[in-house]
Amino acid sequence: MSGDFKTPSQVTFAPLDPPSRLLMGPGPSLTPPRVLGALAAPTIGHLDPRFLELMDEIQVMLRRVFGTANALTFPVSGTGSAGMEACMANVLEAGDRVVVAKNGIFGGRMADIAERLGCSVALVESDFGEGIDPEAVATALAASDTKLLAFVHAETSTGVLQEVAPLAKLAREAGALCLVDCVTSLGGIPVELDAWGVDLAYAGTQKCLSCPPGLAPVSFSERAVEVLKTRRSKVASWYLDASMLLNYWGGKRAYHHTAPINMLYALRESLIVVLEEGLSAVHGRHMKSHRALVAGLEAMGLSLPVAPALRMPQLNVVTIPEGVEDAAVRGALLRDYDIEIGGGLGPLAGKVWRIGLMGHTARAKNVSALLAALETTLGGLGANIQRGAALPAAHAALAD
Amino acid sequence: MSGDFKTPSQVTFAPLDPPSRLLMGPGPSLTPPRVLGALAAPTIGHLDPRFLELMDEIQVMLRRVFGTANALTFPVSGTGSAGMEACMANVLEAGDRVVVAKNGIFGGRMADIAERLGCSVALVESDFGEGIDPEAVATALAASDTKLLAFVHAETSTGVLQEVAPLAKLAREAGALCLVDCVTSLGGIPVELDAWGVDLAYAGTQKCLSCPPGLAPVSFSERAVEVLKTRRSKVASWYLDASMLLNYWGGKRAYHHTAPINMLYALRESLIVVLEEGLSAVHGRHMKSHRALVAGLEAMGLSLPVAPALRMPQLNVVTIPEGVEDAAVRGALLRDYDIEIGGGLGPLAGKVWRIGLMGHTARAKNVSALLAALETTLGGLGANIQRGAALPAAHAALAD
Repeated sequence: MSGDFKTPSQVTFAPLDPPSRLLMGPGPSLTPPRVLGALAAPTIGHLDPRFLELMDEIQVMLRRVFGTANALTFPVSGTGSAGMEACMANVLEAGDRVVVAKNGIFGGRMADIAERLGCSVALVESDFGEGIDPEAVATALAASDTKLLAFVHAETSTGVLQEVAPLAKLAREAGALCLVDCVTSLGGIPVELDAWGVDLAYAGTQKCLSCPPGLAPVSFSERAVEVLKTRRSKVASWYLDASMLLNYWGGKRAYHHTAPINMLYALRESLIVVLEEGLSAVHGRHMKSHRALVAGLEAMGLSLPVAPALRMPQLNVVTIPEGVEDAAVRGALLRDYDIEIGGGLGPLAGKVWRIGLMGHTARAKNVSALLAALETTLGGLGANIQRGAALPAAHAALAD
Repeated sequence: MSGDFKTPSQVTFAPLDPPSRLLMGPGPSLTPPRVLGALAAPTIGHLDPRFLELMDEIQVMLRRVFGTANALTFPVSGTGSAGMEACMANVLEAGDRVVVAKNGIFGGRMADIAERLGCSVALVESDFGEGIDPEAVATALAASDTKLLAFVHAETSTGVLQEVAPLAKLAREAGALCLVDCVTSLGGIPVELDAWGVDLAYAGTQKCLSCPPGLAPVSFSERAVEVLKTRRSKVASWYLDASMLLNYWGGKRAYHHTAPINMLYALRESLIVVLEEGLSAVHGRHMKSHRALVAGLEAMGLSLPVAPALRMPQLNVVTIPEGVEDAAVRGALLRDYDIEIGGGLGPLAGKVWRIGLMGHTARAKNVSALLAALETTLGGLGANIQRGAALPAAHAALAD
């Protein structure tokens, strides 16, 4: 890097005025006004008695959306990837063996983190867009003593939903802990850590919880806490060390690092929003929006590469039609309609779009706005699509 | 931990209504209303063209407050301690030798992080409340090949300000990188990384920048970037790996993790607030508030344990008078006056108060409110203080 970063003596930037985007990508999703309102409440101290009450309330609600009674359930002060690293760093030590079942980008990230922690990683790979093969996982677990099985519940890079309980059972039978990435699932589809037998899970706030990005809810089972407490070495990361964090989020309220106060206000509000609507109603709204979107896309002549049985409602992967340029479409949607959808990641870059229906975004009106904008945009670019069929099909799906 | 964390089937929590605190502890400081307003602007995507512009603007302003032309200057997605860990993890590898000059809690934290990274740490210790001895640092650097010298500019646990340039020069002469903790200094007193020859620095947002906690501005010199680029091993932390982060904050804008969008809105606004007032005006306001506070406290009969030449304006450590109970006073200030001040950390717990005059908090009216409340509270508890002298003394100091 060159050193031509001399700063002007007078800095004058325009007042903040971000565009009003309809966020239909892989996250962040739309943030409800009352969550933004909570975010802007006056800052108080991280040891203020009122703040300590708010922390308790957040923990109660996080346990509910995670489907767990785990005491050590709290938001890590970082985004979803910090939650991933926190879960792995706290239970893994150099030399441990980890089985990562990888069917997308985020499984690959788990393997990278485990390797940085000095672990040996056995990868059980499936193609992008496929589910994980339980038999291959069982074989990998049986091959050698394993500390942890890790995989993704809802792969944001592929739109594939993974059934958790059967894999968690395999981990338990092999004496391994089970870690599940719930970044894109939490709040959008059922998550039942205790019923499934999951030991460690992390999520993000900017997906189906519809809170701005910046926090990573995590949950550790008693088995995971026991592993943490009987480590031979210190946790590799000071910042993410849950043995110290539980002194702040647990009973003692001992200072570790300054909590991100206002982000925690927002998370609390977003959890209230979800629980006031009710988890099953929220899940139903995601599913209904998804059905309408899929009906509309298919009526337009577009196809979804993921098999119907493996699809998640909150992130819909769509094949880019032959001859259509990815950037032109996404650029036009953003420029002409203020709609953001996501591009493909890794091997899927340029081949698919990722359309999010997460949290506050998962509503019929947004499905309708997207289908209308996409049809006009693709038509304008000369793509071979069916005109006039998407909206009636979506409408019919909603009425079912 | 027991498993009695069953959550109620219906969760009903009151609307968020945090008390209006006057934040005069070691941070967070008061957040100006326009920064809270920016925080609540509608969320947009982390790859949105408008957001990428905002990132550029934040980097330009951060370089200015850090006093640097360093290209790799950006906010880490975590609080100040994540910035500390990011700086150390990116340049240190297992087996490296680190000299930590420690004169408070935060120097101790640096040593802990270096040890977790597998480094050998040579501690140069001074008593809490004392400055760092350059001769002892020179001796430690000379003892063996050293990768990094690390110390704190403004020790938040003791209120001691450290002159940076002489220590940075020693590091340079010894062929070591120089890392400085600027958490409590940035925005409150002059920080001149380039003029001082500092290679790595980190800060927090919730101190003199008066932005809510949650981000850690960092800056890496070209020498530090060179060390990062020629590492033998991967950075221990995936989340904090600057070699990947510079693909997002640098030219390519490649996705690494979802940036904390709304917190970055707030940081941008807080930097504009600081630069609109002007750095020297801001520093002058901190100094003036400090002089008034000290004059008032001393007129009341209270004493400050740090030698005048070592004091920083933004955090004032005050000895708790004989026979006065720490918690009773801080509790009364919070309950009766909505004023938060800080207690002592580590060996200073129960022995001192820490009174912050950081950022937006550093104003004469707040000094006046605190002195009035403290005098009444101490008087009510029967402490042996001078009544009626503090406010005139503070007023006189302001007029100087």
